[in-house]
Amino acid sequence: MKVFIEPIGKLINEFTKLPGVGSKTAQRYAYKIINMPESEVAGFAEALLRVKRDVHYCKICGNFTENDVCDVCKTRDKRIICVVKEPKDVIALEKIHEFTGVYHVLHGTISPMDNIGPNDIRIKELLARIAEGGVEEVILATNPDVEGEATAMYISSLIKPLGVKVTRIAHGIPIGSDLEYTDEMTLARALLDRKTL
Amino acid sequence: MKVFIEPIGKLINEFTKLPGVGSKTAQRYAYKIINMPESEVAGFAEALLRVKRDVHYCKICGNFTENDVCDVCKTRDKRIICVVKEPKDVIALEKIHEFTGVYHVLHGTISPMDNIGPNDIRIKELLARIAEGGVEEVILATNPDVEGEATAMYISSLIKPLGVKVTRIAHGIPIGSDLEYTDEMTLARALLDRKTL
Repeated sequence: MKVFIEPIGKLINEFTKLPGVGSKTAQRYAYKIINMPESEVAGFAEALLRVKRDVHYCKICGNFTENDVCDVCKTRDKRIICVVKEPKDVIALEKIHEFTGVYHVLHGTISPMDNIGPNDIRIKELLARIAEGGVEEVILATNPDVEGEATAMYISSLIKPLGVKVTRIAHGIPIGSDLEYTDEMTLARALLDRKTL
Repeated sequence: MKVFIEPIGKLINEFTKLPGVGSKTAQRYAYKIINMPESEVAGFAEALLRVKRDVHYCKICGNFTENDVCDVCKTRDKRIICVVKEPKDVIALEKIHEFTGVYHVLHGTISPMDNIGPNDIRIKELLARIAEGGVEEVILATNPDVEGEATAMYISSLIKPLGVKVTRIAHGIPIGSDLEYTDEMTLARALLDRKTL
């Protein structure tokens, strides 16, 4: 006989679709749901549906928004555009409360291995924004991995001729970490990018 | 400005209600949902609602079922009743595919600290089942903690006078573990409960 009755087995199966959730964890989540008040579970289900129904991409920057144009594009300094791979990178940058410009989400990075070329990510949309004028600096904040670097180099080669300042976020030893435990690539980069004090 | 737009913030908040899920994990789950096809998210939401709508307690044993009486109670040997604290203990026991009897879920254990007395858990329902006759053995499989032991002792004191065999699951050193790393309580119990070979 089956160990789980069907509705519970189904819910456990749904939970295992979440990243890093195995069957044991999914089971714990399912028990929690069973023991929640019905109204609370209804709220949970509604939150799931709503995020698919109401969340779109901003037609300017490609970040998540409930509207046509996101609040960042509506209210912030358009002279500086920070280019990132994914919407979650915007969240990460917003959390530091330092950046006052706007974003451009590429929705991917160039990756020949995965058959993702320059036309598969939002590069032409970025060029169109720059062509509209008023942009003084483009900060390339793609990840410091092979694809992120390649994408940054490629975009830089397109934008520099337009006379716009192009910068790349700094790579180096993370604050609070130890030289001893820093990987060689990072250490080499930190040495190469050393600053005059 | 807020870091998350409202529908995403709401979903993250729902996920943090799951056991062991902090804001970082909830965020990862929410991103996964945003990137799922709409039909899959609808299935997820439906699974949540369905588990609350269709899962009840078996009116005999108190375990989860979609019907009035669960499949275990319908089909298995009623002479042996295994008493457990929670439905998830039934799942744990079913997974070993050894037990052929039926269950009785107490939905709690006696715990004066939490104001849970004998009348707050399904003890009288157990006595009623025994009163119907045909029960030859009651296995007390509550957890080996203070509340579980106290509950087992209490139930035992009620059932023994009825002439029904009462047993308690064995405590001892887990299979595959090391004497060296076994806690003192378990080791003491293992010594006390030693078997003649």
